[in-house]
Amino acid sequence: MTEGPYWCELALVDGHVVADVSVTVADGRFASVEPGTAPSAGSTRLHGLTLPGLANAHSHAFHRALRSRTQVEGGTFWTWRELMYCAAARLDPERYHRLARATFAEMVLAGITAVGEFHYLHHQADGTPYDDPNAMGEALLAAAADAGVRITLLDTLYLHGGLEAAGYLPVEGVQRRCRDRNADSWAERVALLRPSSSQRIGAAIHSVRAVDPESMSAAVEWAATTQAPLHAHVSEQLVENYQCLAHHTLTPTGVLQQAGVLDRRFTAVHATHLIDDDISALAATGSSVCLCPTTERDLGDGIGPTTLLADADVPMCLGSDSHAVIDLFEEARAVELDERLRSQRRGVHTVEDLVAMATVNGHHSLGWSDAGAIVVGGRADLVTIALDTVRTAGTTTANAAEAAVFAAAAPDVTHVMIDGSPLVVGGTHVRIDVAGELHAAITDLMES
Amino acid sequence: MTEGPYWCELALVDGHVVADVSVTVADGRFASVEPGTAPSAGSTRLHGLTLPGLANAHSHAFHRALRSRTQVEGGTFWTWRELMYCAAARLDPERYHRLARATFAEMVLAGITAVGEFHYLHHQADGTPYDDPNAMGEALLAAAADAGVRITLLDTLYLHGGLEAAGYLPVEGVQRRCRDRNADSWAERVALLRPSSSQRIGAAIHSVRAVDPESMSAAVEWAATTQAPLHAHVSEQLVENYQCLAHHTLTPTGVLQQAGVLDRRFTAVHATHLIDDDISALAATGSSVCLCPTTERDLGDGIGPTTLLADADVPMCLGSDSHAVIDLFEEARAVELDERLRSQRRGVHTVEDLVAMATVNGHHSLGWSDAGAIVVGGRADLVTIALDTVRTAGTTTANAAEAAVFAAAAPDVTHVMIDGSPLVVGGTHVRIDVAGELHAAITDLMES
Repeated sequence: MTEGPYWCELALVDGHVVADVSVTVADGRFASVEPGTAPSAGSTRLHGLTLPGLANAHSHAFHRALRSRTQVEGGTFWTWRELMYCAAARLDPERYHRLARATFAEMVLAGITAVGEFHYLHHQADGTPYDDPNAMGEALLAAAADAGVRITLLDTLYLHGGLEAAGYLPVEGVQRRCRDRNADSWAERVALLRPSSSQRIGAAIHSVRAVDPESMSAAVEWAATTQAPLHAHVSEQLVENYQCLAHHTLTPTGVLQQAGVLDRRFTAVHATHLIDDDISALAATGSSVCLCPTTERDLGDGIGPTTLLADADVPMCLGSDSHAVIDLFEEARAVELDERLRSQRRGVHTVEDLVAMATVNGHHSLGWSDAGAIVVGGRADLVTIALDTVRTAGTTTANAAEAAVFAAAAPDVTHVMIDGSPLVVGGTHVRIDVAGELHAAITDLMES
Repeated sequence: MTEGPYWCELALVDGHVVADVSVTVADGRFASVEPGTAPSAGSTRLHGLTLPGLANAHSHAFHRALRSRTQVEGGTFWTWRELMYCAAARLDPERYHRLARATFAEMVLAGITAVGEFHYLHHQADGTPYDDPNAMGEALLAAAADAGVRITLLDTLYLHGGLEAAGYLPVEGVQRRCRDRNADSWAERVALLRPSSSQRIGAAIHSVRAVDPESMSAAVEWAATTQAPLHAHVSEQLVENYQCLAHHTLTPTGVLQQAGVLDRRFTAVHATHLIDDDISALAATGSSVCLCPTTERDLGDGIGPTTLLADADVPMCLGSDSHAVIDLFEEARAVELDERLRSQRRGVHTVEDLVAMATVNGHHSLGWSDAGAIVVGGRADLVTIALDTVRTAGTTTANAAEAAVFAAAAPDVTHVMIDGSPLVVGGTHVRIDVAGELHAAITDLMES
């Protein structure tokens, strides 16, 4: 992909697949989008189906090092968490930069143009801040810049080691890396982060297990002042609900609601185990939900109430979370296919809705309201998938969107442009040997 | 992959991943298998992890033409079946040969070395036999030979158009293509099939909806006489159970048991909705179950009782069935991940068991008891996956089997040998342009 203009054989424009779309770009934004046009002289031809940029709204980059390793002896969510803590204990800013750079580049290869990095490993192993208190967060920002992906760094407030009926537990072990002294010192630290123009800082409340309601309010205030996205892990496991109910006599969503967390800038991540009142509260406040189906399968979380959320008009988006796989097509179809397994009904979510989850809804959740659509003035992200691979062969215009959601896989992505910059050309990242860097970073972290 | 000897960086031998495995082949079988050896001069080096051949124990090749198309408006299992019938109505032996050749070649690219083709489109559109009464079946045998995959053609007995409380319904529409006059004329026709030495003929009872118990017994007799595998669709949808109970006052498995169908050569395909007595009957008779998780997701069938089947020691194998995707790694992990979604427990099925489902159990179900393991005397099938792709990077010997099951995908298959013949080299089929032929065959069938 050279500098524009671009011509798309098929493109998803206004929610529909249309043919022969010419696109020009200026200053990283779409300057023109014209369906039904012949390719102009010198234009770059994008064969296959070109989609808007995909947004990965929930990522913990370092979990990529655990892929396959956590499968070795089955176990539970909680034994999985122990192995995750082991990897976390070994990270330092340099190692984190290397691993995240390769992981973010794997995302770019899969057509992900923006990532929400839910970041909680702030300090040294014993809890002492680094000389630069944001050394770890800055490593992630640098990694995203290297890989070329737009990032919302969701800097995570994490104060407690757990929740029992009697109250919050002190942090221990690797959790000391996550803990700021209190919400004010978290906000002071976050204010020092220096994102570039294609980066933004958001806030996250780790969970009701790690943040008390009073401290949540401080995060809400910070997010409101800076108009930043605010995310939280919510009800991924029933145990969390039980612990929360035992102490607060409220569900996690109920606690968040009472603390003023729910609003249009808020995204509840997972939201697997909700009661009707939780769904009503999310809907009434314009909150989003981020589903992470491949992780939720992997960890045995259960199937989230996506039909009820859709009926309540709660916007849903997608995240690869633990990176068991990095493939937003797989996440999108899993929303529908898991619902089919539960309900024994087909076609619960439309393809249009599933595409929206993977694109515009995710960008909205990350604070990029000007991304996720191929439209004049929008951020110039383009993701082209080949329709002539063994997986997609036989596709026509009439079922191209269905092929993207139900048949395509990350290896079918041939070209990726982010904010006007070509990052993937012919299936290859233009500046990173992704598999090689993943191997080196993971081996260094896990085997040395 | 030239003629041997071969040297595998890592290989799965006796259920374990071992390093530096030298292999020689004679007359399509393993002549020697020696772990811990240096590559001899002139040996072909297979980098990554080399697995035994994967078996796809349940396929309807022509369903490949429906991929993505059936997603266009949601619908039910039964509206899906209507679209499937439309495609079926347009097939003739030449078209079927072209489509199946490309579909079987897609399987070979994915590491599938044997396929069980559950074949029921026997006759012309109005039910008249072709001049060669096995023209369609012979087209499938020729297609498999072209693609290089070993085939068990499960020639399917199909006599009735459905089952209601009052009894069996006559065939109508495209079902006329499937119907033989009676079980005897089915057996006479099947006896005329001429498989090659790497092909065998098995029998299938389409379902309790399409075959009455008396006719089932004829199929059982034929299978016993020829020592052939015998398969049947069983309890994929609850509706089938209700119809069967209403007429027979037995479950589908109960009907099959009473007709003498269950034994070591029998495989119940799907077996999604079973009662405890069904599982006991399958276990007591040594019957197998073929799971088709990606199809069962797609059609909203539900999650099969794989934990109960494992507890009862019922051998399980895998099929890509409707070919929503063709990826046995995805099928294998889906068995475990779907169970995690239901039970909210991890590690229900071990990696060793999941690999067995994808390999030796499938070959057994298809009557190839000498395949599915890298062992002296066994059929020389080798499937090599790269461990240096973006999906598999970071894998070590200790978690290579887990990487195959939980992280790898069909595009990671680099080399495939079947019965001693190299069919895939460097990710490419040695004699078929798979995507190109898929496109041509599907476009011809669906769009012309």
